[in-house]
Amino acid sequence: MGISRNQLEKMRQRLAGRAPGPGVEAEAGGAHGHGFLRDGAILLGIDPSLRGTGFGMIRVRRRDVEALDYGVIACPRNWSRSRCLGEIQKQMTMIVARQRPDCCVFEGLFFAQNLKTALIMGEARGASLAVAGACDVPSYEIAPRKVKQAIVGFGAAQKQAVALMVQRMLKLEAPPGSDASDALALALAFAHSYRGFVAERPSAI
Amino acid sequence: MGISRNQLEKMRQRLAGRAPGPGVEAEAGGAHGHGFLRDGAILLGIDPSLRGTGFGMIRVRRRDVEALDYGVIACPRNWSRSRCLGEIQKQMTMIVARQRPDCCVFEGLFFAQNLKTALIMGEARGASLAVAGACDVPSYEIAPRKVKQAIVGFGAAQKQAVALMVQRMLKLEAPPGSDASDALALALAFAHSYRGFVAERPSAI
Repeated sequence: MGISRNQLEKMRQRLAGRAPGPGVEAEAGGAHGHGFLRDGAILLGIDPSLRGTGFGMIRVRRRDVEALDYGVIACPRNWSRSRCLGEIQKQMTMIVARQRPDCCVFEGLFFAQNLKTALIMGEARGASLAVAGACDVPSYEIAPRKVKQAIVGFGAAQKQAVALMVQRMLKLEAPPGSDASDALALALAFAHSYRGFVAERPSAI
Repeated sequence: MGISRNQLEKMRQRLAGRAPGPGVEAEAGGAHGHGFLRDGAILLGIDPSLRGTGFGMIRVRRRDVEALDYGVIACPRNWSRSRCLGEIQKQMTMIVARQRPDCCVFEGLFFAQNLKTALIMGEARGASLAVAGACDVPSYEIAPRKVKQAIVGFGAAQKQAVALMVQRMLKLEAPPGSDASDALALALAFAHSYRGFVAERPSAI
């Protein structure tokens, strides 16, 4: 798995409710520590990508979190870009219609190698974000580092560590595929931000 | 208007059917010079932007070109990004539904100052492109330089020169606003590419 014993121990402690990670002391008991997320709120995490947009819908209750729907909108290599974006629009519209989320959570500022890559990543993101906007579902973004901090406890965590924590937090039988687990992690990180697990609120987009 | 006498003269010659610009000799009489665009084809040019997406729909007949619909999808400064993208999705869907185009034409590779700008430009483009894909309308792109070459006759033409040529070609009472005229220019350049006015075919996206 590529996860050190020390990292695994930290993850175990987090699952047991100890060592909740950075930000919690500053937030605990603060004005924004609790109460902004309604009990039973439905959150949809989205990890946009032209060929494989991950999505993960969770329901957040006071004492537990439940996975409602997750997966990948897969678009074959031989599809044109516009066909892929059209598929993302159609699938996203159905996902949002099935269980109307209270909000969508996207990954914030990320790394792109060059302008061309940024443009293509932006297109995939725009197709999903437009569906949220057209359905009047508010959208937020969280920086990737903050997501990992919230889920695994350290910002440089590997993908497998995120998938493993997502699996345990949501009591899934197997770790979800990496696109879906990144999306579920976004939704979970958003929920945690309203429980004082991270130092600042996600930004509206 | 910022247009030199020499440029105006070139534009006049183009309107009169002379000096059709680069590419025509290579194409004239070639296998792809004519015939790939059906008579009466409807083309939708789109110039995506978060706050002002220009659109321009034209009908191309053997002997003339007619503007069917053009304008701007305007989104106020105080709207969030997702709300703007949602508005683009909704308006674009209505525009495509009103008069179903045979294809959409976007601006190809363009200049972005940095990754953040490229991402935001990509988002606006993705929202429009997704509508075309979801409606099964094929999309193409043409480089901005090629559009100007096709419309004005030189690749470094100014926006006003483009607007003026668009106005004359479509016999409009006034030059359209710059977003709409760029979109109409895209559609016109696409039509011209099937009449041998440019050296290469637009690429499918």
